[in-house]
Amino acid sequence: MSGVAAQFANIVGDANLLTGAAIPEDYAHDEALRVAPRRPAYLAKPGSAEEVAGLLRAAGEHGVPVTARGSGTGLSGAARPRENGLVISFERMNAVLEVDTANHVAVVQPGVTLSDLDARTAEAGLGYTVHPGELSASVGGNVGTNAGGMRAVKYGVTRHHVVGLEAVLPTGEIIRTGGKISKVSTGYDLTQLIIGSEGTLAIATEIIVRLHPRLPHGATVLAPFATFDEVLTAVPKIVSSGLEPHILEYLDTLTLTAISDHVRLNLGMPADVRDSAEAYLVVALEDRDGDRLQDDIGELGGLLDALGALDVYVLEGGSARRLIEAREKSFWTAKAFGADDVIDVVVPRAAMPEFLRRTKRLAEPYGASVAGCGHAGDGNVHLAVFCEDPDERRKLLTGVFALGMELGGAISGEHGLGRTKSGYFLELEDPAKIALMRRIKATFDPAGILNPGLLSDEEAAR
Amino acid sequence: MSGVAAQFANIVGDANLLTGAAIPEDYAHDEALRVAPRRPAYLAKPGSAEEVAGLLRAAGEHGVPVTARGSGTGLSGAARPRENGLVISFERMNAVLEVDTANHVAVVQPGVTLSDLDARTAEAGLGYTVHPGELSASVGGNVGTNAGGMRAVKYGVTRHHVVGLEAVLPTGEIIRTGGKISKVSTGYDLTQLIIGSEGTLAIATEIIVRLHPRLPHGATVLAPFATFDEVLTAVPKIVSSGLEPHILEYLDTLTLTAISDHVRLNLGMPADVRDSAEAYLVVALEDRDGDRLQDDIGELGGLLDALGALDVYVLEGGSARRLIEAREKSFWTAKAFGADDVIDVVVPRAAMPEFLRRTKRLAEPYGASVAGCGHAGDGNVHLAVFCEDPDERRKLLTGVFALGMELGGAISGEHGLGRTKSGYFLELEDPAKIALMRRIKATFDPAGILNPGLLSDEEAAR
Repeated sequence: MSGVAAQFANIVGDANLLTGAAIPEDYAHDEALRVAPRRPAYLAKPGSAEEVAGLLRAAGEHGVPVTARGSGTGLSGAARPRENGLVISFERMNAVLEVDTANHVAVVQPGVTLSDLDARTAEAGLGYTVHPGELSASVGGNVGTNAGGMRAVKYGVTRHHVVGLEAVLPTGEIIRTGGKISKVSTGYDLTQLIIGSEGTLAIATEIIVRLHPRLPHGATVLAPFATFDEVLTAVPKIVSSGLEPHILEYLDTLTLTAISDHVRLNLGMPADVRDSAEAYLVVALEDRDGDRLQDDIGELGGLLDALGALDVYVLEGGSARRLIEAREKSFWTAKAFGADDVIDVVVPRAAMPEFLRRTKRLAEPYGASVAGCGHAGDGNVHLAVFCEDPDERRKLLTGVFALGMELGGAISGEHGLGRTKSGYFLELEDPAKIALMRRIKATFDPAGILNPGLLSDEEAAR
Repeated sequence: MSGVAAQFANIVGDANLLTGAAIPEDYAHDEALRVAPRRPAYLAKPGSAEEVAGLLRAAGEHGVPVTARGSGTGLSGAARPRENGLVISFERMNAVLEVDTANHVAVVQPGVTLSDLDARTAEAGLGYTVHPGELSASVGGNVGTNAGGMRAVKYGVTRHHVVGLEAVLPTGEIIRTGGKISKVSTGYDLTQLIIGSEGTLAIATEIIVRLHPRLPHGATVLAPFATFDEVLTAVPKIVSSGLEPHILEYLDTLTLTAISDHVRLNLGMPADVRDSAEAYLVVALEDRDGDRLQDDIGELGGLLDALGALDVYVLEGGSARRLIEAREKSFWTAKAFGADDVIDVVVPRAAMPEFLRRTKRLAEPYGASVAGCGHAGDGNVHLAVFCEDPDERRKLLTGVFALGMELGGAISGEHGLGRTKSGYFLELEDPAKIALMRRIKATFDPAGILNPGLLSDEEAAR
C-alpha cells in the first residue's frame, strides 16, 4: 500500500479503504451515457465529517484529486472519478439523523437516499418535496447538482429546500452554514454557493432540509393534444389558473408510447385518440381535502378541454402512480432504446415550442432524432438524443445548447454540467462569468483537488 | 470640480452628478437607528448599466468607495455612504421593464419600488410575493439584503423569487445571471451569491423576479393568548395544519397597543381580554375561492381555540388591512417611541420562546427593555431595543446575538448586517467562514471599492 493509501486507511480504518483492482467497477462511473468509466486509485468510506476532513487534508498534501459520490445516479458524469484519484463514498454516512416536527426540517447525512428520507418523514406526516426521477439518489448528490424533478413546478428545486449544511472545505476546515431556519441575511450565502457546485467547492457532510405537510388526496390527469404547440401554450394558462398543480409534465407521443410499453401500462386510450395525438400533458393536483380535490379536477378538466385537449383522462390510484413512475423512469427507457445522450436544457417556459421546433430542425442534417418529455411548468426540456457519431453529436449538442441560451435559458436545469456538458459551457458561456467562477473555485480550493475537470475548470475544454 | 468628479459627470451627465454640499442630506443615511449620517463626496444618478460600469471603472481607478442606494429604507446602515465616497442612486433606473404573463416574471430596474411593482403586476392579475413592511423600498435594495417580510412563511424571501440579474462587477464588466427560468444547474449560482451581499460584490442593474397569480379572497384572524409560550407553541401546529397561512405573526401586548394607538386602530377587543393577554397571533389566509376561505377560517378559529386562544377575532376588510399595515409600520412606531435599535434575530421557530425568555433576562441588568413582534412562522424575531447607553447596548446586543446563534439561528433574518451589525458578526461568527467570505469578496472586488466596512470587512470590527 502506497504512503498516501496508508494515510487514507489510517483515517477511515482498513476495512473502509479499497485500492486499485479491489474497487468494484460501479465506482468507476455514474449513469451518464457514453462516458468511459475510470476506476479510481482509492475508494474511502468515511464515517464522520472529521474523517472526511482528514481525507481532504491528506489528499491535498499529496495532490490526489477527490470525487465525492452519493448513489452514483447522476446523469452528467460529475461522479466519474480520476484514475489517480480518491472516491469518497457516503454509503456509511446514510442516516436520517433527525426529523424535527416542530421546525419542519430533517437533518440527514449526505448518503441517505430520497426513498429512505421519504419513508422516515412519512411517519411524521411530513415530506421532502424534491423528487427527481430516481429515488435511490442521495440527498448529498442532489445538493451537488441542485436536483429538481417533477414537483419543482409547485415546490421549487433542491436550492429552495436545503436550509443548512455542514461542509468540509478542501483545506480541511469543517464549517456550518444556515441552520433550521428558512431565512438569513448575514453575509454571503455559502449554503447556496455550495449547492449545485458538483463537488468542486466543498463536500457536504450533513444537510438540513425543509419538510412540508403531506397532502393526503391526489389525482392525475392525462390529456392528449393534436399538436405540440397546443400542449405548450396550455401550460402558462394552467399555471395562471391558481390550481397549483404539483406535477405539470409534457410527453411526446414517442415517449409516452415507449414508457408505457416499457412498464406495460395500459392507459385505456382509444386508438383514434392515440393516432391523432402529437403530445400529452400530465397534470397532478393534491389537496388536504378530498372534495376540494374533486372540484379542482373537474375545473382542470374543463380548462384542458377549453384549451383544445382531444380528451381528458382522470387516472385513479394504481394507473396514475404507474404513469408517474414510468415518467420518472424515462431515463431508463431512453437508455434501453439506445439513446446516446440525455439532456435537460431549460428555457423560459413560453419558449419551449420554439426550442423544440428549432431543435428538431437542428437534428435533421445529422439524421439524428430527439424525443422526450419534460417539466413543462419549468421550461425544463428532457430530450433523449439519438446520434451515434461523437463528432456529429458534439456539433448537434453545441447547436442545441446555444439555442437554449439564445432563448434565455441554460444548458442544464437540474442534471448539472458534470463531465459531459462542461466543455459546451466553456465554449458558450460569457468569459467574464467563467473567469469569475474560476476565481471563486480558487478561493475554496487553492490546490484544485476537488473534482477537477468540471464546470469552469479549463481542463474541461479538452 | 475635481478630476474624478468631472469623470463621473462625463459618464452620467452634469445634471446627474452632485458633489459636496449640493448633495441633499437624505443621501447621508438610511433608516438605521443611531447611525451617524455621512454626506458622500459624490452622488451619481446613472441611467443605464453601461453608465454604472463606467462609474465603477472610474471609482476603481481613483480608489473611491462606492455605495449603491435604492430607496434608503434599509434598517442596518448598509446604504450609509463614506465621506470620501460615491453614492450611486437608482432613482432614474426605476422602471418596470416588462411584466411577462406567459413566463410569470417581471423584469425591473433596481430603483423600482415595491408599490410600483405591485401596481403594475396587479393589472395582469399577478403579484410579487415578497412584502417587507416598507413598500417604498426598492427591489434593488431588497436584493441587497435578501429582504423577507410577512408573507415569507408561505412564499419565502427575496432569494426564492429573484431568478436573474444583470449586474456590474466592480471591475466594470456587465454580466447576466439566471434568466426567466426558475431552475438552473450550470456552475456556481452567481444570482444567489449576489443576493444578500449588501452591495459588496456587484451592483444589480436589472432584476428578474417571479410572479404568482393573485388570490382574490383573504381574511385575517387576531387571537389573544394569556401567555407568550402558548402563542409560540401554537405556531408549529398552525403550520402543520396545511391551512398554509401567508401571514403568521406574533405581537407582544406592548407592541399591539403601540401600533394600534399609533394608527388609531380600534380592534374592538373587550378590556378584560386585553388585560389578560400577554401576546397575540395574527394569521391571514388567502384563497382563490371565497367559500373555501370561509371554511378554512372556521377551521383556523377552531384550531386557535383548541390551542388556548382567549378569543378569536376575524377581521374583515378595512380593519384587517389596517392591522397588517400597522404591523408593517411597527418600525416607525418603535422609532416614535424612542427605540435605540431594532434587531431581527432569526432562530429555529421552536426556539422562539426560549430566545425571548432569555433575551428579557439579558436585558434586566442594564435596565433595558425589549418589545416586539415577529414573523412567527419563520422564527424571525423583531425586537425594538430600548437601551440608551451605547456601551451597555453593545454588550446587551452581543449577548442577544450570541444567544440567537447558540440556539441555531443567526444575527439577522432579513435586515442584513450593514454598518450596525457587521461588528457583532465578526466577533461571533466562525473565523473559517469569515476568512472564506473575505476571499470571495476579493475575487469580485480586488480593489475593495464596493461598500467597504460591511460584512466580513475587517474594518467593520472597529
